[in-house]
Amino acid sequence: MTKIPKERLGKYLNLQREFKEERYINLHPIQRGGVLTDAARKALLEFGDGYSTCDWCPPKAARLDAIERPPIAQFMQDLAEFLSMDVARVVTRCREAQFIAFATLGEPGDYVVVDGLAHYSTYIAAELARLKVKEVPHSGHPEFKLDLDAYADKIEEVKRETGKLPAAVLLTHVDYLYGNLNDAAVVGKICKKYEIPFILNAAYTGGVMPIDGKKLDVDILVSSGHKSWAASAPTGILALKEELVDRVLARSKMVGDWSERKFGLKEYALLGCTVMGGPLISLMASFPHVVDRVEHWGEEVEKARYLIEQLERIEGTRQLGVKPKQHTLTHMESEGLYKASQAHKRRGFFLYDELKRRNIVGIQPGLTKHFKLNTYGLTKAKVEHVAKAFLEIAKDQGLTIE
Amino acid sequence: MTKIPKERLGKYLNLQREFKEERYINLHPIQRGGVLTDAARKALLEFGDGYSTCDWCPPKAARLDAIERPPIAQFMQDLAEFLSMDVARVVTRCREAQFIAFATLGEPGDYVVVDGLAHYSTYIAAELARLKVKEVPHSGHPEFKLDLDAYADKIEEVKRETGKLPAAVLLTHVDYLYGNLNDAAVVGKICKKYEIPFILNAAYTGGVMPIDGKKLDVDILVSSGHKSWAASAPTGILALKEELVDRVLARSKMVGDWSERKFGLKEYALLGCTVMGGPLISLMASFPHVVDRVEHWGEEVEKARYLIEQLERIEGTRQLGVKPKQHTLTHMESEGLYKASQAHKRRGFFLYDELKRRNIVGIQPGLTKHFKLNTYGLTKAKVEHVAKAFLEIAKDQGLTIE
Repeated sequence: MTKIPKERLGKYLNLQREFKEERYINLHPIQRGGVLTDAARKALLEFGDGYSTCDWCPPKAARLDAIERPPIAQFMQDLAEFLSMDVARVVTRCREAQFIAFATLGEPGDYVVVDGLAHYSTYIAAELARLKVKEVPHSGHPEFKLDLDAYADKIEEVKRETGKLPAAVLLTHVDYLYGNLNDAAVVGKICKKYEIPFILNAAYTGGVMPIDGKKLDVDILVSSGHKSWAASAPTGILALKEELVDRVLARSKMVGDWSERKFGLKEYALLGCTVMGGPLISLMASFPHVVDRVEHWGEEVEKARYLIEQLERIEGTRQLGVKPKQHTLTHMESEGLYKASQAHKRRGFFLYDELKRRNIVGIQPGLTKHFKLNTYGLTKAKVEHVAKAFLEIAKDQGLTIE
Repeated sequence: MTKIPKERLGKYLNLQREFKEERYINLHPIQRGGVLTDAARKALLEFGDGYSTCDWCPPKAARLDAIERPPIAQFMQDLAEFLSMDVARVVTRCREAQFIAFATLGEPGDYVVVDGLAHYSTYIAAELARLKVKEVPHSGHPEFKLDLDAYADKIEEVKRETGKLPAAVLLTHVDYLYGNLNDAAVVGKICKKYEIPFILNAAYTGGVMPIDGKKLDVDILVSSGHKSWAASAPTGILALKEELVDRVLARSKMVGDWSERKFGLKEYALLGCTVMGGPLISLMASFPHVVDRVEHWGEEVEKARYLIEQLERIEGTRQLGVKPKQHTLTHMESEGLYKASQAHKRRGFFLYDELKRRNIVGIQPGLTKHFKLNTYGLTKAKVEHVAKAFLEIAKDQGLTIE
């Protein structure tokens, strides 16, 4: 052990977040759906102590999802039902949920077919499960629209090349780059025909918009509590159809060669218990709000469209991805703001500076030509403030406003 | 999507923990080291919102451990230094740290040699990594003392059976069943001789007692933030020697076959970012306290020994595991309390009931013959209250007190 000098410990004594929700309008593309409810804030503190969820762990079930006080077992059922799936587990991250699916459905060397806009976590989840990836293409600039029918071609391609079907198929419901919403039912139908498990990555959709796993023919739905369910990180959702439970939630078969101990209650790909603390409880505490808020998804999309319409008034500025926008995650391209940045002494950072002066944060510092933002959960007044700020900043830089 | 009826959502509206630290003396064997500091409680709330640690994610490094505001990057260094290791990461759980080590050091079918008292999570982490397990035996009842020299025999056995050395060796520093402390240096020396990576599972030791990874010849040290570092769940610690960084923290080599995207910054076995929220911040906020508290480990062991001495005054009652006790996690065997339970209308539950009447919780309901408890972090006065309670309860049941 090394004794860390006291003066080096000072930096940990009062850890504060600069961009508090009550002070700033935060447009950070990955943060809007993870802002806690007041109930979640209280619950997080209530179950802040490590392992505080485990006071009433039933000795004969001895698993997080079996605990009834607090109502974790009940929550797993309600969560599954909410998504029109059969069984749900809360795991540490959406990426872990993807890994669990890949590791249990595939053997090393198998293929998984994914969309060409899948998040990096999908690729490395496959890599950790020792699977190969085959991508379905998109249309490129400016729409970046996925060719969903090409899933069938890619499945055939894998079959031709390897002599067997892919272990699984994954579609990113809404992608992280352009916020395009995909019609999962198209891919669900293809997978059903081939009898390949269909994984829907609902990191940007579950918890903010209505999803019906059954209608979409989804076999495994993964999502992110801290991204879209008003929960603390780290929390992921893994929801399954009954038919896959035996594979994905398989119990441990390990036996100690000397001790002869067995661990047959434990779901081995989850490593047994997962989120045994505050973040799970925050997810549960926000659940009543989430159940309600998904019904107001249309209003959220309206606000995003309003902001895009305003931003597109700026010279040389347009929304990338499919139009009209069907999600609040937005990717803007602005030749105008880029031009302004070239003449500015702060270069690309001027946009960040000017927004921050107006209490708006979350756009990546330095970017002007391409930047992402998310309006989810902001009031109309705040979105109007953002629109006004952008127009003002553009005007100040001598750009034309339509 | 299924609309969950409002009346079913009521149970999530006010999630409260019954066994609050300020009201009860909680002896739960896995909970004592994870009670938050006040600083951690504040920090948890400050960074409660999902992804709130990511406000200042550096675009060119784009990884949790590279963030300097809050000082996460600095913390990784301080944490490694504190354990006398070279590099540290915070992952979601100690079991995930074990899995990461197994998955990156071994190929499917390889062996890992573990102690016969290893936690279930060690076995299923190996199972998920598709490794086999070979156990080092212990002496059985009543000491359950591991034969540390037998690590060499087991390594030889693997070599004989498979023609190759085990992929890794793991020792549980203090086991979950009897709280026996093992001299890790013995195993470290054996592993050094064979040039096999030595993993120390310090779930019950890192964060409560001083550990010097270098002196113990540890290659990979794993620990649990929510178990022993006054942090919220889920948090695990993965600390490495420099020599293993290239293997255990290997960067992604995946390339999108159509998009040609690469993810070469990401540590693939960690699935990229890990604990991007409150629990990590709680670990950091408690760190100054933890650095200080490990120096008072001797006093903690004294309190445990005092309680054991008092409990052993009860007829037919003794501590299991090695004596004298070197850790606060304690396993008691009581033929006396068991005898009393047989005559009691509440059977084994009488002990739980009687303790709870005295505001003492954490002993598993129903148990009398064998039960575990942990006194870590309780004041001497509280430990005395516990001792007195046990003696009173035993006396009331007509048991002899020495």
